[in-house]
Amino acid sequence: MRIHIINPNTTAAFTHADLAAGQASASAGVVVTASEPPEGTPSVESHFEEAVAALGVISEIRRLEGEPIDAFVIACFGDTGLAPAREVARVPVVGMTEAALMAAALVADTFSIVTLPARTRIHSHRVVRSLGLDLAGRCLPIRAVDVPVLFDESEEDAVLKAILAEGRAAIDTDAAEAIVLGCAGIGHLARPIETELGVPVIDGVSVAVGMAETLVRCRLTTSKRSSYADPPAKTLSGSFRSIARSIS
Amino acid sequence: MRIHIINPNTTAAFTHADLAAGQASASAGVVVTASEPPEGTPSVESHFEEAVAALGVISEIRRLEGEPIDAFVIACFGDTGLAPAREVARVPVVGMTEAALMAAALVADTFSIVTLPARTRIHSHRVVRSLGLDLAGRCLPIRAVDVPVLFDESEEDAVLKAILAEGRAAIDTDAAEAIVLGCAGIGHLARPIETELGVPVIDGVSVAVGMAETLVRCRLTTSKRSSYADPPAKTLSGSFRSIARSIS
Amino acid sequence: MRIHIINPNTTAAFTHADLAAGQASASAGVVVTASEPPEGTPSVESHFEEAVAALGVISEIRRLEGEPIDAFVIACFGDTGLAPAREVARVPVVGMTEAALMAAALVADTFSIVTLPARTRIHSHRVVRSLGLDLAGRCLPIRAVDVPVLFDESEEDAVLKAILAEGRAAIDTDAAEAIVLGCAGIGHLARPIETELGVPVIDGVSVAVGMAETLVRCRLTTSKRSSYADPPAKTLSGSFRSIARSIS
Amino acid sequence: MRIHIINPNTTAAFTHADLAAGQASASAGVVVTASEPPEGTPSVESHFEEAVAALGVISEIRRLEGEPIDAFVIACFGDTGLAPAREVARVPVVGMTEAALMAAALVADTFSIVTLPARTRIHSHRVVRSLGLDLAGRCLPIRAVDVPVLFDESEEDAVLKAILAEGRAAIDTDAAEAIVLGCAGIGHLARPIETELGVPVIDGVSVAVGMAETLVRCRLTTSKRSSYADPPAKTLSGSFRSIARSIS
Amino acid sequence: MRIHIINPNTTAAFTHADLAAGQASASAGVVVTASEPPEGTPSVESHFEEAVAALGVISEIRRLEGEPIDAFVIACFGDTGLAPAREVARVPVVGMTEAALMAAALVADTFSIVTLPARTRIHSHRVVRSLGLDLAGRCLPIRAVDVPVLFDESEEDAVLKAILAEGRAAIDTDAAEAIVLGCAGIGHLARPIETELGVPVIDGVSVAVGMAETLVRCRLTTSKRSSYADPPAKTLSGSFRSIARSIS
Amino acid sequence: MRIHIINPNTTAAFTHADLAAGQASASAGVVVTASEPPEGTPSVESHFEEAVAALGVISEIRRLEGEPIDAFVIACFGDTGLAPAREVARVPVVGMTEAALMAAALVADTFSIVTLPARTRIHSHRVVRSLGLDLAGRCLPIRAVDVPVLFDESEEDAVLKAILAEGRAAIDTDAAEAIVLGCAGIGHLARPIETELGVPVIDGVSVAVGMAETLVRCRLTTSKRSSYADPPAKTLSGSFRSIARSIS
Repeated sequence: MRIHIINPNTTAAFTHADLAAGQASASAGVVVTASEPPEGTPSVESHFEEAVAALGVISEIRRLEGEPIDAFVIACFGDTGLAPAREVARVPVVGMTEAALMAAALVADTFSIVTLPARTRIHSHRVVRSLGLDLAGRCLPIRAVDVPVLFDESEEDAVLKAILAEGRAAIDTDAAEAIVLGCAGIGHLARPIETELGVPVIDGVSVAVGMAETLVRCRLTTSKRSSYADPPAKTLSGSFRSIARSIS
Repeated sequence: MRIHIINPNTTAAFTHADLAAGQASASAGVVVTASEPPEGTPSVESHFEEAVAALGVISEIRRLEGEPIDAFVIACFGDTGLAPAREVARVPVVGMTEAALMAAALVADTFSIVTLPARTRIHSHRVVRSLGLDLAGRCLPIRAVDVPVLFDESEEDAVLKAILAEGRAAIDTDAAEAIVLGCAGIGHLARPIETELGVPVIDGVSVAVGMAETLVRCRLTTSKRSSYADPPAKTLSGSFRSIARSIS
Repeated sequence: MRIHIINPNTTAAFTHADLAAGQASASAGVVVTASEPPEGTPSVESHFEEAVAALGVISEIRRLEGEPIDAFVIACFGDTGLAPAREVARVPVVGMTEAALMAAALVADTFSIVTLPARTRIHSHRVVRSLGLDLAGRCLPIRAVDVPVLFDESEEDAVLKAILAEGRAAIDTDAAEAIVLGCAGIGHLARPIETELGVPVIDGVSVAVGMAETLVRCRLTTSKRSSYADPPAKTLSGSFRSIARSIS
Repeated sequence: MRIHIINPNTTAAFTHADLAAGQASASAGVVVTASEPPEGTPSVESHFEEAVAALGVISEIRRLEGEPIDAFVIACFGDTGLAPAREVARVPVVGMTEAALMAAALVADTFSIVTLPARTRIHSHRVVRSLGLDLAGRCLPIRAVDVPVLFDESEEDAVLKAILAEGRAAIDTDAAEAIVLGCAGIGHLARPIETELGVPVIDGVSVAVGMAETLVRCRLTTSKRSSYADPPAKTLSGSFRSIARSIS
Repeated sequence: MRIHIINPNTTAAFTHADLAAGQASASAGVVVTASEPPEGTPSVESHFEEAVAALGVISEIRRLEGEPIDAFVIACFGDTGLAPAREVARVPVVGMTEAALMAAALVADTFSIVTLPARTRIHSHRVVRSLGLDLAGRCLPIRAVDVPVLFDESEEDAVLKAILAEGRAAIDTDAAEAIVLGCAGIGHLARPIETELGVPVIDGVSVAVGMAETLVRCRLTTSKRSSYADPPAKTLSGSFRSIARSIS
Repeated sequence: MRIHIINPNTTAAFTHADLAAGQASASAGVVVTASEPPEGTPSVESHFEEAVAALGVISEIRRLEGEPIDAFVIACFGDTGLAPAREVARVPVVGMTEAALMAAALVADTFSIVTLPARTRIHSHRVVRSLGLDLAGRCLPIRAVDVPVLFDESEEDAVLKAILAEGRAAIDTDAAEAIVLGCAGIGHLARPIETELGVPVIDGVSVAVGMAETLVRCRLTTSKRSSYADPPAKTLSGSFRSIARSIS
């Protein structure tokens, strides 16, 4: 089985980290690969960048069409491009955010997301709401550290401290019983944060790989009944033609 | 005051219809203009096409940056590209779907959307859910006629009959008290359908122009506090560079 | 076109302020008029007063029946008497609260109401809930300054400071991106508060006039299908007979 | 202990029926009395009539202020005037609708309301929504027989049959496990309907008396903390002055 | 009429307190009795103990099958074993939690639960959610004092103070207008807490007896239509001895 | 890695089927084992049987305490005993229902459960609601075939046809895009049903094993922070023998 992780942004260092996380959590015999689109945005922290990166996700899926891939994982918090990816791909697609939220719901009654920067809370909330976990009282208010996704390495200590502070507030004030890390770029901090906070801390990439494996082993793939049916055959125009070509 | 309507798809006939609808409902002295992106998809009826069209919406807003426009209206059911448009534009942006739902809520307790084709119900539902109108018991289950957005003119009679049938079912079975037409391309049918059904029938483009005017007159524009702040300055790569240039 | 604003309470100074706000935001050629019921309560800050004022709203609509009015606006936070007004009027009726909430949803992802006095939060919440904006995570907890609606002019500075404090708490603690002012009597403070807070601040009367205009231009009026059908012909008794006469 | 039932409309025959229902279900030693306002509307089947009847409810409570009453029951589906009654009364007030819904929730997982006429579904829904029973999946879609509240006695058989048909549809189609009768005027049909349908059928007046008794015995009364505090002392004007007098 | 209170745990002192509360609030001529299962857990503060105690509740109902009991009340916050009890009993069954929440909704717009220990908030929340009172904005976040149910008598003063502190926070911070005490073991503190806090404070056992009476007088009992039908006739196996051994 | 499936009922044939399903979907090198409690109920189709079976689940976990098990799967629709199991077990526990719903949400926008018998819909709904998937509009109304869990083998064809009919109704009437099979006993029918219906059909046992593996590989286990902390040390009394006698 081969699971391919798509990093929606163009920062190769993130792709490497995603790949490491995915390989560490994949089961025996499962090949994990990863790539990022050649063009796009170095990080996704606005709706504008999300729109740009969604095209990158689609184009990666089309580029890899001939390869023996059994499922895709999208490795960006907010699940950039997940819906079109489900239409375009012939195999199941799992978003790291939805996977992280599901894993949290399997190990805790209540949980919080700690994301970054603050403006991206709306992207996290969209996924939470699409599952109903806010209305069910499971996912508590989303917390954020207000630094850019591509914060400088020298700031990592400060960022870690800020995440810990938000995590503690989630636990003490909101009664959270687990924490979801709201950014693929901080997944490697999951274990140290868990040690400090004493509750499960979830990195979405790792669990998304497991859930993708599960779908493959259970021979489940995206329903083509209506919402995620193949896009209708249609001639796109302009610079979108290369994407269009692979689809229609 | 000038309101500019962006048709997210590349079908100029739709742009003309949007413009006619907008001009008919605009108040005295308000100039309404309209355009569609030069490249993209001839209609939006999948997430993939939505991703393509969202880029078109953004690029139209950037292209028109220097022009004296007071507000934008996005004229595609599902409000394609609305969130990034709010980030990128310096003036308010109103989606035809959200505007239609709000107008419906102002004239009826309960209402239904009749959209097309069936697969796009998920796009309508996203907007309904973003306002809570489903949970409030205001917006009833979304109904659809399963023809493509670009159905042949010769089919218009059959489509009209099918919309009327769904509208009647919404009224009789679900107790709908108004109908929202779920496609910019059928806005010109609102009056004949209203006459047949005997309840208010809402075309989103018309009301969106009015709501955009309202925001302008009340000097209200998109909050730049967090979710819709200007996209962060960043160097995009590849064919996105031209869009990026105008933004960063 | 003529939009008539009904101030549900008997305080003429509020009617004048509503009229000024409405005229300032109306489009060219639209005549805005306003009135208050001759009898009733000087302000609405309890369910009891709401019951009294609702009769006043109905009786104003009946009194003005012969006049060439195209839409009514109800200018009291909580939308006093809105439902019966929709039954009784032959033209659309827009409440300042629903209009304010809709405008907020058009310019911000999340927003808060700052109302007064504290006991009226339940009236605001009723409108919020009727649209689902609380469940959608759009309208955050309602905040209040605990002074009477008819606070003394000498207290205006203190009230303004208290509103600013609540607004800042909404922004900083609850992550609000816009503020709705929860009282027609403080609408004139919207601009200074906006300047201080740096987020959109919405006065409902202004936007309600615009939304009423929109409905009129789009030839939309209250659905008479069921919930807001004309009240059944019936003989009322006692001092209600005069109201009854004009209706049945 | 004395429980006083207020029939919000002016039809004395309904008051007698309410009284009979209340006396039949009251516990030993509890005196049940009932009255209707001297002026108002013969039935409540619109928001307009609700506004009229709410004043009647308030004025009955004020008229009875000096009498040794321990709790009030409001006997009109939709709980006409309940909120102002809670402000004005010195003792607890129970609405027949909220009581019926609570009793239904105590004897069944899911239940439906069968009300009349169709236009009043919005009034029932308001109470359902105020408790959250719709969102909890407990109260299923409201069904209605479209006859006026004051249907002719000769039609009772036809009405009974229509209620049974709706009740059966609720059970068979919606999986309802109990039925709430949505009108005080048909409470006497509860037992025959129950026999036919084979599920609990709830008349709100009976259970409201029991719940009012419960509050009295447990020394619980309306919280005066905020939402239902006494109306502020204020001078009302015009024909409202007599009501005002007894309050301020 | 006879109402029988089942205390799901084995602590007889709690049964005595429940009996006293029930007798104090029962109406004239109603006999209140109470019992606890002979075997089980001395208190219920985990899901594990809830599973044990649910069996005790069922077995008490079976043991009392031949006695002339008209309704059961389950006297443990979280309503331990309520669903199976409804299946097994031939008479209505009322949980103290659901009854307390309903009583709170009859006397206040918003209310909070103060329970103990902290880990049992999930049990309270289950009942709140089953009615929808959280989504309706009626039941505010659940608060807790983190002491065991069987705290030492010498700690009662400290516990009382902690409950008062949480109650005040609920009133001042969350705008609660009433407080529900989330444990049968502290019901006797309801009156002193109410005096201190100045809002209604609800003990579930008292109100549950009244609601059970109400159902009996109105001849309402559990619907046997589907969810709570008698358990299917079936041969269970074993003696549960091994279970007992492993858990005690 | 070893995943142990607990079949909460005493029917060994179900355990064998669960084991086969789990082994078929487990990844290479993962050992799957399964057991049922030696005593209890042959199937779970009422709350009463659920109470009995929950004790069986707990006792199996306790019995297996010393064995090198990495995660448990509970193989009964409704997730019998899941909450106490999470308290008692030292390793993660996954319910087949929650896992099935999550898998459905990963491959379809909307989906339905087809369960059996009809009375167990409430058990399914409890899990749906605990995740919020009903309020999110993802999980549509639950459908049922009204046959006992232990239907006779000779009826399998009729049951299969009935499930197909409900599945088709879910797809055609409710717009479901996937089907969750609501009973461990019919998991082997998933593939033939999928072939007939043309949408993904999900058997919970298979996906639960995959999700349990995922948690183990990601080193995630039940949060012990509050809701699922170890049960407090406490001396339970009795042997439950009398309970056993009265219920069998």
